Amino acid sequence: MSEAVTVAVVGATGFLGGEVVRLLARHPGFEVTALAAGRNAGRRLSDVRPSLRGPADGDLIAADPDVLAERAEVVVLALPHGKSGTLGAALHARGAKVIDLGSDFRLTAPADHQRYYARDPAAPELLDDAWYGLPELTGPPPPGTRLIANPGCFATALALTLAPLAGLADDVVVAGVTGSSGSGITPKASTQHSLRMTSFTAYKPLRHQHLGEVRQLLASRGPVPAIRFVPHSLPAARGIHLTTVLPPSVSAEAVREALHGAYADAALVDVVDGPVPLGAVVGSVRTLIGVEAHDEGVAVFTAIDNLLKGGSGQAVQNLNLWHGLDETLSLPIVGSWP
Amino acid sequence: MSEAVTVAVVGATGFLGGEVVRLLARHPGFEVTALAAGRNAGRRLSDVRPSLRGPADGDLIAADPDVLAERAEVVVLALPHGKSGTLGAALHARGAKVIDLGSDFRLTAPADHQRYYARDPAAPELLDDAWYGLPELTGPPPPGTRLIANPGCFATALALTLAPLAGLADDVVVAGVTGSSGSGITPKASTQHSLRMTSFTAYKPLRHQHLGEVRQLLASRGPVPAIRFVPHSLPAARGIHLTTVLPPSVSAEAVREALHGAYADAALVDVVDGPVPLGAVVGSVRTLIGVEAHDEGVAVFTAIDNLLKGGSGQAVQNLNLWHGLDETLSLPIVGSWP
Amino acid sequence: MSEAVTVAVVGATGFLGGEVVRLLARHPGFEVTALAAGRNAGRRLSDVRPSLRGPADGDLIAADPDVLAERAEVVVLALPHGKSGTLGAALHARGAKVIDLGSDFRLTAPADHQRYYARDPAAPELLDDAWYGLPELTGPPPPGTRLIANPGCFATALALTLAPLAGLADDVVVAGVTGSSGSGITPKASTQHSLRMTSFTAYKPLRHQHLGEVRQLLASRGPVPAIRFVPHSLPAARGIHLTTVLPPSVSAEAVREALHGAYADAALVDVVDGPVPLGAVVGSVRTLIGVEAHDEGVAVFTAIDNLLKGGSGQAVQNLNLWHGLDETLSLPIVGSWP
Amino acid sequence: MSEAVTVAVVGATGFLGGEVVRLLARHPGFEVTALAAGRNAGRRLSDVRPSLRGPADGDLIAADPDVLAERAEVVVLALPHGKSGTLGAALHARGAKVIDLGSDFRLTAPADHQRYYARDPAAPELLDDAWYGLPELTGPPPPGTRLIANPGCFATALALTLAPLAGLADDVVVAGVTGSSGSGITPKASTQHSLRMTSFTAYKPLRHQHLGEVRQLLASRGPVPAIRFVPHSLPAARGIHLTTVLPPSVSAEAVREALHGAYADAALVDVVDGPVPLGAVVGSVRTLIGVEAHDEGVAVFTAIDNLLKGGSGQAVQNLNLWHGLDETLSLPIVGSWP
Repeated sequence: MSEAVTVAVVGATGFLGGEVVRLLARHPGFEVTALAAGRNAGRRLSDVRPSLRGPADGDLIAADPDVLAERAEVVVLALPHGKSGTLGAALHARGAKVIDLGSDFRLTAPADHQRYYARDPAAPELLDDAWYGLPELTGPPPPGTRLIANPGCFATALALTLAPLAGLADDVVVAGVTGSSGSGITPKASTQHSLRMTSFTAYKPLRHQHLGEVRQLLASRGPVPAIRFVPHSLPAARGIHLTTVLPPSVSAEAVREALHGAYADAALVDVVDGPVPLGAVVGSVRTLIGVEAHDEGVAVFTAIDNLLKGGSGQAVQNLNLWHGLDETLSLPIVGSWP
Repeated sequence: MSEAVTVAVVGATGFLGGEVVRLLARHPGFEVTALAAGRNAGRRLSDVRPSLRGPADGDLIAADPDVLAERAEVVVLALPHGKSGTLGAALHARGAKVIDLGSDFRLTAPADHQRYYARDPAAPELLDDAWYGLPELTGPPPPGTRLIANPGCFATALALTLAPLAGLADDVVVAGVTGSSGSGITPKASTQHSLRMTSFTAYKPLRHQHLGEVRQLLASRGPVPAIRFVPHSLPAARGIHLTTVLPPSVSAEAVREALHGAYADAALVDVVDGPVPLGAVVGSVRTLIGVEAHDEGVAVFTAIDNLLKGGSGQAVQNLNLWHGLDETLSLPIVGSWP
Repeated sequence: MSEAVTVAVVGATGFLGGEVVRLLARHPGFEVTALAAGRNAGRRLSDVRPSLRGPADGDLIAADPDVLAERAEVVVLALPHGKSGTLGAALHARGAKVIDLGSDFRLTAPADHQRYYARDPAAPELLDDAWYGLPELTGPPPPGTRLIANPGCFATALALTLAPLAGLADDVVVAGVTGSSGSGITPKASTQHSLRMTSFTAYKPLRHQHLGEVRQLLASRGPVPAIRFVPHSLPAARGIHLTTVLPPSVSAEAVREALHGAYADAALVDVVDGPVPLGAVVGSVRTLIGVEAHDEGVAVFTAIDNLLKGGSGQAVQNLNLWHGLDETLSLPIVGSWP
Repeated sequence: MSEAVTVAVVGATGFLGGEVVRLLARHPGFEVTALAAGRNAGRRLSDVRPSLRGPADGDLIAADPDVLAERAEVVVLALPHGKSGTLGAALHARGAKVIDLGSDFRLTAPADHQRYYARDPAAPELLDDAWYGLPELTGPPPPGTRLIANPGCFATALALTLAPLAGLADDVVVAGVTGSSGSGITPKASTQHSLRMTSFTAYKPLRHQHLGEVRQLLASRGPVPAIRFVPHSLPAARGIHLTTVLPPSVSAEAVREALHGAYADAALVDVVDGPVPLGAVVGSVRTLIGVEAHDEGVAVFTAIDNLLKGGSGQAVQNLNLWHGLDETLSLPIVGSWP
């Protein structure tokens, strides 16, 4: 391979940004040349996030588009929801390639921004240019791609589960759980340790915002079933697990065939029999999908690491494919349970 | 009140038995006069379970029915599944009153023992005598009751949720989670700390054995919907949480009305709007049920402490009612989150 | 017993205040007649803390000293450090009896407020009137007591350990750990769930502020050894555990004799052989102290529930004694592990 | 680099063995050619440990020394304590190179096997041939090394802390904590999830068996202080943290100088000011050492991942050095907190 591609990471002190920094620390294809953060600009990354000592470390700068575009060919945005649009557009205008881990470029239709996020898109003119990159379903970024919208964590798990099954059922019920890292590093009531560790609760039942991108992706491929999805807060740090319940009219054989068919060539998706333990994928970019049937119906189980396949790992997978590299290059593909 | 009723606890070193011992330690209506355990007979209870120091403590004896029936008017059985039948029958024959926290006396039909537990009932002649005691749905034990089958943990949560709703839907999907204490104190792979604390997994999907007693109870009251129930292992110690998803054909108003109607007079069941955090009931015998509707359907949330309302607390509630006492006497009715 | 004493709880939505509310919910000697909170005044207590449904629930009012003094004979202050002084003085001036779970009235010498908290005392004129109430060491409040300073959580564990041993060693090393509830309910970086649950760290090494009250208490009884105390943040919600290491010059026999002698009559302190598991005291007001010796020295282990014996439970113990009741009345004296 | 060195992993289903398998899965210098396990021989590795899907996976064979020596140049032994001696000797006799993660080859003096493990060494004739490999202190294996004893987890942290400081103090007190993975994958009472997750307890106070190898290593370099070490069980899965308290006679400057001097050239040890959070090293082979002084003494903090630097990661570090590779090759050198 020729010279490493230069990369800037914006939001480097957050959970997703920090994971991007970690994954690129010794990546042979990329070199991190800028680390940006908001109120922590001027500090050392490892002073804010002491796990990021070593080759990943560096000084934090402010997220100035001129500086970022000058320093790096590709800019990774790992910002809270709603914060990427303007900066992404500014970077795009300056010729930088952008991959956004936030939600601002995922939905193509402006109306969906209102429906799912109750706001107008920050950069409506770019929505059609952004490529939604969930490699197992969308393939690698097409030539000329300059802006990638990296899927949401629940969206990744939902889409990988439902895309192969969408034609089999009109209506699915999905119960999901997510670790607390999905809520970000900023302390808040829902991630107060004492309260979180002994609790479990549903939130945004039947109305999670990631349904928008899932429906959009499914619609681009065929019929879209009704998805009654209830996410829950798990008293663990990492991981997403979905249990999808299909009506008895769907046969287990059809489900297995659809899933095995969809992922026969996928390096990072395994379809197995029976439940899948979330622990098996924590620390890796792997997706595990399990199927079990009984008289009353069929249950499908899906497990990913929310920060890796559900965010930073998938971003690096996209970066690899975007630059003609093996999609798993430098990624952790074996889990580290416990 | 007159003199305290004498009680023996069999399985005192287990999680459920230990909680019964704790709850009765300063109960004005009951006096624990015997503590029995299997291989730990001869030891001091607090040497096996150091949390049970103080007034709850005592010497462990073997579970000899003659001794137990002589020492106590009521015997509480808190044994692994399948271990209560023979002992319960022996105690019954000796004139002792028995409340069993296991599953051996819950199912009336011998065929259901085969269907749900793959075994014949140990004491088939007593199945009709046993009273299934879930006070909010069955009321207090009728006069003359000498044997109480205390409901299972998931069964309690499922029945309290579905009994009021059974007439509204033909088909419900329920995703449940339980803390590791539901698997008992004996170390096993599913409760190995390192593996459990970072994982989450479905088990016995669509085929949990507690569905038997739930269907039996619902059938005694009216129609029984199809219940597609998937339980999961939670990385927490205590608690059960259910998310029940109803089809869009059911109105949220009907759901709320049914639940509020059912529990208007229940001292220990609260019906609220929106999700219910599991933490809110940990440490108490309270049941919280929440309702939230959206375009795509109605979600109902249920939270109990698996060891209290789902086991020992409900047993003491039954003991109270059985002996003409206030059902909440000496029970923790306020949660201790965190 | 005659009529219940009326009690107001200020800071009712916090961890300590909430536990006081819970413990008094069905206490035969006290009636909670006012619940006060800061920014949550006007809301329902259980809307802020859903575990506090039931008899403990009520409407939150602002912490106005006139209203509080009118509504209650005793006011329990459970406020962040430094917030009790002024309010406590105002209540005292209005004739209310006050028990403060904060630190403002614990240190008698104004200089110690500077040394340990880097501030002047808010109510210096009351410092001599406040009675430091650690019942096992100080006995019940003397007649006429109108202001009780309830000990700090680490201070309780340290004092119970070191008071009997102070004459045996010139120098002790103590490593302590505390659950995250010790940091209070307000979200902060140190209690962010994702970060806390997989970490463990020392904080304020050799300079924890509770050393002030411990040294003051020890000094009132005899010699004060050098205490090299390092506290740590535990990835658990509740509990304090200390490991005290004594030099080899101290004999295990002397240690055991001193501890057994000190607590022979203590209802809530047990001295045992060997390590003590923290879980054994979680959920109870009990203190467990263990001793183990080896060639290289003697180790003493101490475990309390930080919110109960380390705060709210000890406050109710003090309330009981203050009002001539049995010190354990209505307190959980058996642990609920898990 | 030339061809990959062939490696067999014995005990591949355990926590340490599984980590070795994971770390070697895409290592350019080594190829895993045999996976051995005891009662699981004949099964697929990922059926026992579902996190080990992918390139690390394979069929498990029995631990037959003839087969292992034929299949691999190097055999990694990751067996319960006391199980490596005989197998290690048999492999050695067959010409295989061996690295043992257990304790059987660590202590040179047979008397120390009795003192610390209460048994005779299984292969006394090999004790002098084994090289104790803690690279930062012992350097790379000398030419001709055919048997490496990989240090214990607590021993690694203790030795890295105390070796530079041994000359400064006659007597140190160390409080340590370890995650539950240190107890291995076999379910046992001390790692029962419900009990572990809400507890914290000392064990083997002042008499942990790893003190033997620490004293042996220190003695080979100079004076050996008295080490009063108390380990504790942490309610977390991974990591070891030590707090070492030095007497006030030792100056903070001397401590800092000694530590910085010792590790100035160490790629994987960082010396910093103040406490070190355990989370910062979880998932990496890095060692963090912090120093903080106060009037009463000096505290030194040490954090490692018990399975990585405390076991499998150090084994791969040793493998790298043994085969002339960069010591950090293929190792995770950036933490993944959370």
